[in-house]
Amino acid sequence: MLREWAKPDRPDDDEIKARLDVARAELAKRQTKIKECGLPVLVVMDGWGAAGKGNTLGRVIKNLDPRFFKVETLKGKSDPEEDRFPFLYRYFVRIPAAGKFMFFDGSWMGEVTSELLSGKTSEKEYQNRLTSIRRFERQLNDNGYLVVKFFFHISAKEQKKRLDALEEDKSAKWRVTSKDRWQNKHYKKCFDVFDDYLASTNQFVAPWYFIDSKDSRWAELQMTEIMVDSIDTALANLDNKVKPQLLQNVFPMKKAKKLAEIPLDKSIAPDKYKKELDKLQKRLADLHNELYRRKIPVVIAYEGWDAAGKGGNIKRVAAALDPRGYEVHPIASPEPAEKARHYLWRFWRRLPKDGHIAIFDRTWYGRVMVERIEGFCTENDWQRAYNEINEFEKELTDWGAVVIKFWVQIDKDTQLARFTDRQNTPEKQWKITDEDWRNREKWDQYEEAIDEMIAKTNTSFAPWYVLESNDKYYARIKALKIVIKRIEEALAAK
Amino acid sequence: MLREWAKPDRPDDDEIKARLDVARAELAKRQTKIKECGLPVLVVMDGWGAAGKGNTLGRVIKNLDPRFFKVETLKGKSDPEEDRFPFLYRYFVRIPAAGKFMFFDGSWMGEVTSELLSGKTSEKEYQNRLTSIRRFERQLNDNGYLVVKFFFHISAKEQKKRLDALEEDKSAKWRVTSKDRWQNKHYKKCFDVFDDYLASTNQFVAPWYFIDSKDSRWAELQMTEIMVDSIDTALANLDNKVKPQLLQNVFPMKKAKKLAEIPLDKSIAPDKYKKELDKLQKRLADLHNELYRRKIPVVIAYEGWDAAGKGGNIKRVAAALDPRGYEVHPIASPEPAEKARHYLWRFWRRLPKDGHIAIFDRTWYGRVMVERIEGFCTENDWQRAYNEINEFEKELTDWGAVVIKFWVQIDKDTQLARFTDRQNTPEKQWKITDEDWRNREKWDQYEEAIDEMIAKTNTSFAPWYVLESNDKYYARIKALKIVIKRIEEALAAK
Repeated sequence: MLREWAKPDRPDDDEIKARLDVARAELAKRQTKIKECGLPVLVVMDGWGAAGKGNTLGRVIKNLDPRFFKVETLKGKSDPEEDRFPFLYRYFVRIPAAGKFMFFDGSWMGEVTSELLSGKTSEKEYQNRLTSIRRFERQLNDNGYLVVKFFFHISAKEQKKRLDALEEDKSAKWRVTSKDRWQNKHYKKCFDVFDDYLASTNQFVAPWYFIDSKDSRWAELQMTEIMVDSIDTALANLDNKVKPQLLQNVFPMKKAKKLAEIPLDKSIAPDKYKKELDKLQKRLADLHNELYRRKIPVVIAYEGWDAAGKGGNIKRVAAALDPRGYEVHPIASPEPAEKARHYLWRFWRRLPKDGHIAIFDRTWYGRVMVERIEGFCTENDWQRAYNEINEFEKELTDWGAVVIKFWVQIDKDTQLARFTDRQNTPEKQWKITDEDWRNREKWDQYEEAIDEMIAKTNTSFAPWYVLESNDKYYARIKALKIVIKRIEEALAAK
Repeated sequence: MLREWAKPDRPDDDEIKARLDVARAELAKRQTKIKECGLPVLVVMDGWGAAGKGNTLGRVIKNLDPRFFKVETLKGKSDPEEDRFPFLYRYFVRIPAAGKFMFFDGSWMGEVTSELLSGKTSEKEYQNRLTSIRRFERQLNDNGYLVVKFFFHISAKEQKKRLDALEEDKSAKWRVTSKDRWQNKHYKKCFDVFDDYLASTNQFVAPWYFIDSKDSRWAELQMTEIMVDSIDTALANLDNKVKPQLLQNVFPMKKAKKLAEIPLDKSIAPDKYKKELDKLQKRLADLHNELYRRKIPVVIAYEGWDAAGKGGNIKRVAAALDPRGYEVHPIASPEPAEKARHYLWRFWRRLPKDGHIAIFDRTWYGRVMVERIEGFCTENDWQRAYNEINEFEKELTDWGAVVIKFWVQIDKDTQLARFTDRQNTPEKQWKITDEDWRNREKWDQYEEAIDEMIAKTNTSFAPWYVLESNDKYYARIKALKIVIKRIEEALAAK
């Protein structure tokens, strides 16, 4: 791509000045519109060392109100803790909120190309990274983000000249890193890798723009004009009420039964339950140590009917675990900062570190259940979510996580009995609310949504397990057995 | 991609039979729905020689009503005339109509990978082809097509076994081509090229599906199940009234004046006109010969106000040309077969062969003028069209065509004078209709649309030229000069 790029003719200084005056004013106007429309704008800046990204960024943000933008420097890995999360984690947790600009000085491009150049990743792993990146950028776009990507380009000769000049200047010397020198020395090799990366991630929904970085005023002009233009396109899409399309499924799926087809008469005797529970919890405790040592992360997702016994089930799993190595995340309705971002953001932020276990009491599947049924998101949003969630879980399993999804199932009569019991038992009354009764009225709607959810997200890499929980004992034992089995398999495979 | 592909486990024969019964019935049902909804479905089949594409296709279409599908064999270039058109021509002219299936046995993949493998295309040209293909597939998708792409995969060993077996069979021997043998001999090299191609064209809107081609029943099952699933996604998108988003512009644009800013007082004296006309037509006639010899195609697009003098202008250009080497295409409202396809289809079909000139009297810009203003397409359709048209014209200029776009401009008073003259002159009365008067009432709406059209499609590779045509003589001379200059430049560059 870079190879075929036709460098634009640099206008003369007067023209640059005149166009800059216009472009700066236009960008300042867009800032207000972005705020009004709640458009989140992610500007990604990559390029050669010493190409002047920093200088140009400094110029661009001078025209923006500091309350409405943020800059994140993502060139190196400043926080080694972040290495213990999936590759996209450090980027996903930093996406902007609605109505704000976010500038990424350096991005995932730097990370994956460096790792390829240094031989730290295999070609196969690199291809997987590209797939992840394409999904990430497309998901942002589909969820209403504008993603504008710039690559700052200079020649090998120009780069060398700049690095030499910096080194001669005592006060600037520190800015030349060994990586910059390495890049200049291996310019051709880097060029090939960059070019391939740029071509592989040049999506229609997030195309690359090359910046001729001869000087920073000219670079600022190019960047500002493109930003204004791209923002206008995004605003037109908002006016247009664009709906991203549903995508053809590309994930391997397992056939799933409908809830109505699942017999719920399974049970276990209380004394047998106690014995089994004890044995399984001991086994799980041992496995947790092993997981920790081997740095395998585990994500356990619980969904189920109200009063199905999720809480008690989670308690029996958690009881077996070392408290330093797990966390239970109860998921309620999203907070304002969460609502202002991609709906998966709050789950990305709650991922376990490697070797840790995260148990989610309700999950990202809220999108296709309560948010669908209560109209908290559009039809297009929840219909797209099946694929987005499959992509999310693929990210987790590719990272090496064991992803276990439980549907805790009871029948309608059992729910009624438990609701009534809660209502009539003073110390349980806090557990039952009017909302529970309202949800119960929508049982059939929920059942339809759940059947669709399980059918469309029952991937071979992150399948659902239904826990028959009319007998809570039975469900707990079954859950523990599945967790143990999946962890054993992961330990054996790694 | 192919490298990382996890081959699915082949189910046992009983399961295949059972699932095939279901899948065939489902596909037959979808055929009716496709017809009802007017969904066009393009199924693209690529893969290794002897992988069984033909057999599998034979099985799949047995379940379809022959009135609703068509098969095109696109493995080799059967018609050498098609080499005289842009690369995508042979594929674009064969896209299905609304409500129909089209199966492409072989596709653009075969063409571009063969040319790369044989060294006929450079790496740079190949990258351009990939860009063209991505645009083509995305445009089809955005314009309501379902594109389902299959790659039939077998190992080198399996391929050799099959080729040997075919050659031993007298009646099948002819089916083994030298290309098949070459492919098998260079399997590794082909694999790498295919793998890169598959990764580079694996778009979200048209993903690749790999078919494990061990046997044709199993291949049929995979293909049928995926088709059913993909059709359901497309039907959901129709239900959902999905609107494809507007894309960030990636083409270099030239600043354009608004129509109101263009002075229309230019004129030329009649005697000077005649002399100039004569001289310029002679020059153009010479250039036409040269074009023909050098095989450079020329596309001249005329748009302008009613009574602006398009017809007379075209006549003066055409008069200079050898009738064997040009064609004038008057563009009226689309016919049913044209309405049933991508709106650019009828223009792709009318492209000139290399060395020829096509003059369009009204053009593809109807989409963003009359279709926009009369509501013949949706707002989203015409808003997307600017980019789609830029992509179309990029295709033409990359092919080597000279693309010249004229806007024939007059003011409102001049139009009134000409309309009145037509009305009052018996031999000119056929030229004026009620519709002309109705359009005139919408002058301001049209002017706004035209200004937007010119601003958004004034690319550096296919810029607009405004012909000031209050004085028709002036406009004709200007048009001829521009045509001559552009052709001279193209001849000098090639």
